[in-house]
Amino acid sequence: MANSKYEYVREFEENPTLLPNTFIVVRVDGRGFHKFANKHGFQKPNDRRALDLMNAAAEATMREISDISIAYGVSDEYSFVFDRATSLFDRRTSKILTTVVSTFTSYYVYHWPTFFSGEDQGLSPPLPSFDGRVVLYPSTKNIRDYLSWRQVDCHINNLYNTTFWTLVERGKLSNREAEERLKGTVSADKNEILFSQFGINYNNEPELFKKGSVLYRVVSESFPIHLIQRPDTISKTQAEKQRKLRQKATIQKEHVDIIQDAFWEANPYLLLDS
Amino acid sequence: MANSKYEYVREFEENPTLLPNTFIVVRVDGRGFHKFANKHGFQKPNDRRALDLMNAAAEATMREISDISIAYGVSDEYSFVFDRATSLFDRRTSKILTTVVSTFTSYYVYHWPTFFSGEDQGLSPPLPSFDGRVVLYPSTKNIRDYLSWRQVDCHINNLYNTTFWTLVERGKLSNREAEERLKGTVSADKNEILFSQFGINYNNEPELFKKGSVLYRVVSESFPIHLIQRPDTISKTQAEKQRKLRQKATIQKEHVDIIQDAFWEANPYLLLDS
Amino acid sequence: MANSKYEYVREFEENPTLLPNTFIVVRVDGRGFHKFANKHGFQKPNDRRALDLMNAAAEATMREISDISIAYGVSDEYSFVFDRATSLFDRRTSKILTTVVSTFTSYYVYHWPTFFSGEDQGLSPPLPSFDGRVVLYPSTKNIRDYLSWRQVDCHINNLYNTTFWTLVERGKLSNREAEERLKGTVSADKNEILFSQFGINYNNEPELFKKGSVLYRVVSESFPIHLIQRPDTISKTQAEKQRKLRQKATIQKEHVDIIQDAFWEANPYLLLDS
Amino acid sequence: MANSKYEYVREFEENPTLLPNTFIVVRVDGRGFHKFANKHGFQKPNDRRALDLMNAAAEATMREISDISIAYGVSDEYSFVFDRATSLFDRRTSKILTTVVSTFTSYYVYHWPTFFSGEDQGLSPPLPSFDGRVVLYPSTKNIRDYLSWRQVDCHINNLYNTTFWTLVERGKLSNREAEERLKGTVSADKNEILFSQFGINYNNEPELFKKGSVLYRVVSESFPIHLIQRPDTISKTQAEKQRKLRQKATIQKEHVDIIQDAFWEANPYLLLDS
Repeated sequence: MANSKYEYVREFEENPTLLPNTFIVVRVDGRGFHKFANKHGFQKPNDRRALDLMNAAAEATMREISDISIAYGVSDEYSFVFDRATSLFDRRTSKILTTVVSTFTSYYVYHWPTFFSGEDQGLSPPLPSFDGRVVLYPSTKNIRDYLSWRQVDCHINNLYNTTFWTLVERGKLSNREAEERLKGTVSADKNEILFSQFGINYNNEPELFKKGSVLYRVVSESFPIHLIQRPDTISKTQAEKQRKLRQKATIQKEHVDIIQDAFWEANPYLLLDS
Repeated sequence: MANSKYEYVREFEENPTLLPNTFIVVRVDGRGFHKFANKHGFQKPNDRRALDLMNAAAEATMREISDISIAYGVSDEYSFVFDRATSLFDRRTSKILTTVVSTFTSYYVYHWPTFFSGEDQGLSPPLPSFDGRVVLYPSTKNIRDYLSWRQVDCHINNLYNTTFWTLVERGKLSNREAEERLKGTVSADKNEILFSQFGINYNNEPELFKKGSVLYRVVSESFPIHLIQRPDTISKTQAEKQRKLRQKATIQKEHVDIIQDAFWEANPYLLLDS
Repeated sequence: MANSKYEYVREFEENPTLLPNTFIVVRVDGRGFHKFANKHGFQKPNDRRALDLMNAAAEATMREISDISIAYGVSDEYSFVFDRATSLFDRRTSKILTTVVSTFTSYYVYHWPTFFSGEDQGLSPPLPSFDGRVVLYPSTKNIRDYLSWRQVDCHINNLYNTTFWTLVERGKLSNREAEERLKGTVSADKNEILFSQFGINYNNEPELFKKGSVLYRVVSESFPIHLIQRPDTISKTQAEKQRKLRQKATIQKEHVDIIQDAFWEANPYLLLDS
Repeated sequence: MANSKYEYVREFEENPTLLPNTFIVVRVDGRGFHKFANKHGFQKPNDRRALDLMNAAAEATMREISDISIAYGVSDEYSFVFDRATSLFDRRTSKILTTVVSTFTSYYVYHWPTFFSGEDQGLSPPLPSFDGRVVLYPSTKNIRDYLSWRQVDCHINNLYNTTFWTLVERGKLSNREAEERLKGTVSADKNEILFSQFGINYNNEPELFKKGSVLYRVVSESFPIHLIQRPDTISKTQAEKQRKLRQKATIQKEHVDIIQDAFWEANPYLLLDS
C-alpha cells in the first residue's frame, strides 16, 4: 500500500536554516514562572534551589549538545551560545531550537526532586515548561554585547528585587509601598537604602545572585586547545574527533563578570572568530 | 543604571508569525528513540506502556493548550492541530512551536514512572527529548490529507513491523533474514505470511497499534456546540469564554479511522472552515 | 580552474518558497510617485495618461506571466493575483516577486512615450521605479476581501481627492484651507460639497477613477472553461497545454465593482477553490 | 466610509528584515537572456554594447541608492553590495530587493537606445527583465569570497566561451564539435588552443571581458575618508550628512582583479568592518 495519494502534504513543510558563520543563541524562558514560583514557595528575591536546578538542567543540556560553547543563566532564563561554525543539524532552525528547549525541559523535570526534595514539594500539573527563541549574532562584538546585555539585566533586576524584598520583609512595607519607595531611584539610591536602613552591603550578596551563572567548556588535557579549530576549516574526521573532545571536556560553572575583557582573554577559544 | 549601551542587540531578534487562517500543525518526534527504546527494553514491534505514555503526555499538552483541537499520535511522534482561527501568542512561530514541544516533554518525563514503574526502569541520562516542527495547511482538505498521511504511515509501518518481528521472534529468523523475506512484499503478502505461517489475523491486532491514537475535545454540556464559533468572528470576551469552555471540555481518546469521512461527519466542529 | 575555494558562499543563499494552495498577491507600488507626478505634471486628482500607462504595463505583465489570473490597479499601485495552485518557479518567493516587479517596471518605462508623447515629457533621471511585496491568502473569502480592501481604498481616496482638488482649483481654496474644510467630513458631506457648491454629481465621474481597473483573462474559444482545471490535479502535459491556453486568452480590462458577488459569479473560474 | 470590514487582510502581510551587521548582496540576473541576446544579435562571446548597458544601469542604480558601496557585474548579472551597517528601509527584505531590481530594470530599458541605437535595434515585447535575490554575508572574509567567486566564474566562463566561439567562428567547427573539443580541457589547454591554433594570447583579451566590471565610490574631496564612519555609530544628522556625501561621490568603474588584496588595500573603506 503506497502512501502517494497523501504524500503531497510534505511539500507544505519548510526547512529554514540559520545563516552560516553567525553565533547562534537559543534562549529559553520559563513560562508563567511567576505563578509557578508562588505555587512552589520559591524564596524572594532569589531561590537558590531553583537557580541550582536551572544550572543543572543547563549543564546537562551542554553535555548532550556539544556544539554549545558557553551558556549564561539568570532567574528563569538561560542563553545557549553555539560555536559560530557549527553545522549541527545542518543549522536547521526548528531542529536546533526545539532540541535545546526539549533537552532543557527534560532535565529540569528530571532533576526537580534533587533540589526540591522536601515533602509537599513534588511537581503536579500544570507542570513547568519553557519557551525558546533563536537569535543570530554576526560578530564577536555582537555576541559579547548580547551576553553583557543579559548580565546587566541580571544586575539591574537583582538590585531592585533585593531592595524591594528587604523593604517588604524587613522594612515591613506593603508591596505597593515598596514599589512607591523605589520609584525613580538609581543604583546608588538602592545601595544606600540597603546599607543605611538595613546594614546590608550589596557587594557582599552572593555572586550567584549578582552575576548569574556562566557555563563553559574548560581547556584541559581532555580538551586541548591546540586541537581546537574552526569546524569548517577541518576534515569531517577531524571535526568528529573534535566533537568527541568537546563532549568529554569539563564544563565549568562560574558566577563572574562577563562584561569586561578578563573572562574572555582567559578563555579565548570560546568565541573563535572567523 | 541603564542598559542602553547593549540593548541594541534586541534588534537582531526576529518574530516571524504563522499565516492567519491556516491550520497549524506542530509535530513532535522522539530524538534517537531507537536507541532509547533499546535502553529501556521497549517491546517489539509495539510497547503499550510507551504508547500509553505518549498519549498521556499528549492529552496533558492538549489540556494546557486549549487552542489545540485534535491530535494524532503514532509510535514516537505526535501531531497537534490548532484551530485555523487561533490567535494564540499572536501566532508567533517560535512561541507556539516551543511551548508545545516543552509542555509535551515535561509531561513525558513526569509521567514516565506511572507507565514504567518497575525496578530498573527509572530514567537516567541521556534523557528522552523531542524535536518539533510547524507546518501550515490552508484548507480542510489539506489538513485531512495530512492526518490521513500519518495514519497510512502508521498502517504501513505497523503491518511491516508486526510481520517482521513475528518472523524474528516466532519464526526464528535473524533480523537480516526477516528483512530479506519481506523485501518486495505488498500488504496482502504480509497478511498472508502472518495468517498462514503463524495463524495471526492482522485485523484482530489491537486498534491502538493499527490505527494510532486520536485525541479530540468532545462536544458536551461543558462544551456546547452552539457556542462554538470561529474565534475571529466574535468579541474578545466571547473568545475568552469560549477558551474556558474548551479548557473544561472532555478530551476523548480513540483508535479509529480518520481517513474516511465518518469520523469527521460525527465531529464537524473540529476543523471548522473559514 | 575550479571554483571550489570560494563556492562555499553559495551556502549562504536561502530559497524560501510560498506556502502551497494559497493565493499569491504581488503588489507593486510607485516609489516616490508624489514627487515623480509633480515632475511630469500629472493632472490632479487623476491623470488619465498615467493610469492608462499603469494599465498597459499591468496588461503586458499578465501577458508575460500567464499564471496571473486577475489584477487590480488604482493610482500608482497594482495587485497581481496568481492562481492558488500555481507552481511557477516552484513558488520561490524572490523569483516570483522580482519577476513581476521587473516586468512591470520594464513595460512602464517602455510604454512611457506612448502615453506621454508631448515634447518635454520624456523621462530623465531619476527614473520611475516600483517596490513590491508578496502576500498570501489562504481562502477565496480572504482574497476577495483583499481586493475589496483595495477597491474601498480607491473609492475613499478618490472621493476625497476629487473634492479636495475641486475646492482648490474651482473653489480657489489654498491646499491648507481645503484640507481644513474636509476635516471630519464623511462621504455624504463630500458628495454634498461637490453637488451643491460645484454642481458635480460624483456618480457621473469616470468609472476608471471611481472603481480602479480590473484585468482578467476571458473565457472564450481560445480559453475554453471546460478545459480549465486546477494545475495540481492534472498531468504536466495538460498543465503545459493549459498554460498555453492562458497565454493566448484575451485579457479584459474593466472598471467595475469587484466587492459585490456579481463580477465573481460571472467569472467563477478566476478564483478556483481547492 | 470606513474600510474596517476588509482591513483585517493587512494582518496577512509579513515584513521580514535582514539580519543587522551583515553585508547585504542583491544580485540581479537577466531573465531568459540567452533568447533575448539572440533576438537582438548580441555578439559572441561578448557584446560590448550589452556590457556597457549593464554597467550604465548599474551605475545609475548606485547613484540612486547611495547605501550601495560596491557593485560587480559580469555577463547579464550584477551584484550590489550594501554597507553592512545600512539601515535603508529599516533593512526590510522585500523593499531593498525590489527597489534594486526595479531601479536597475528601469535604467536598462531607458538606456537601451544609447547603446543599441541602430535601426531595427529597438526593443519590442517580450521586453528584457531581471530577477533578483538577497544574500547576507556576516564577515569581511565572506563578502570578499563572494565577490571572488563571481570573478572566478567570470574568468572560467570567459575563457571557455572565447575558446568555444573561436573554434566555431574561425575554426569552422560546429557548436557540437567545439563542445566535444573542449570536453575535459583545463585552462592551460584552452590557452594553448587559442594560441597555437589561432595565434590568440588570451592575456591580451580586453580586461572588461576577462575581469568583469567593478563599480565603487571614490574617496575624494566630495567624499572625504575622514568623514566616513559606520552609520550605526553616529547621530542621525551625521548619517544624513554622510548619505549626501555618498550621493555626491564619484562612482569609479574598473576592470581589475578583486580577488587579491591590492584592490581592497587601496580602498579600505569599502568593506568597513564592525
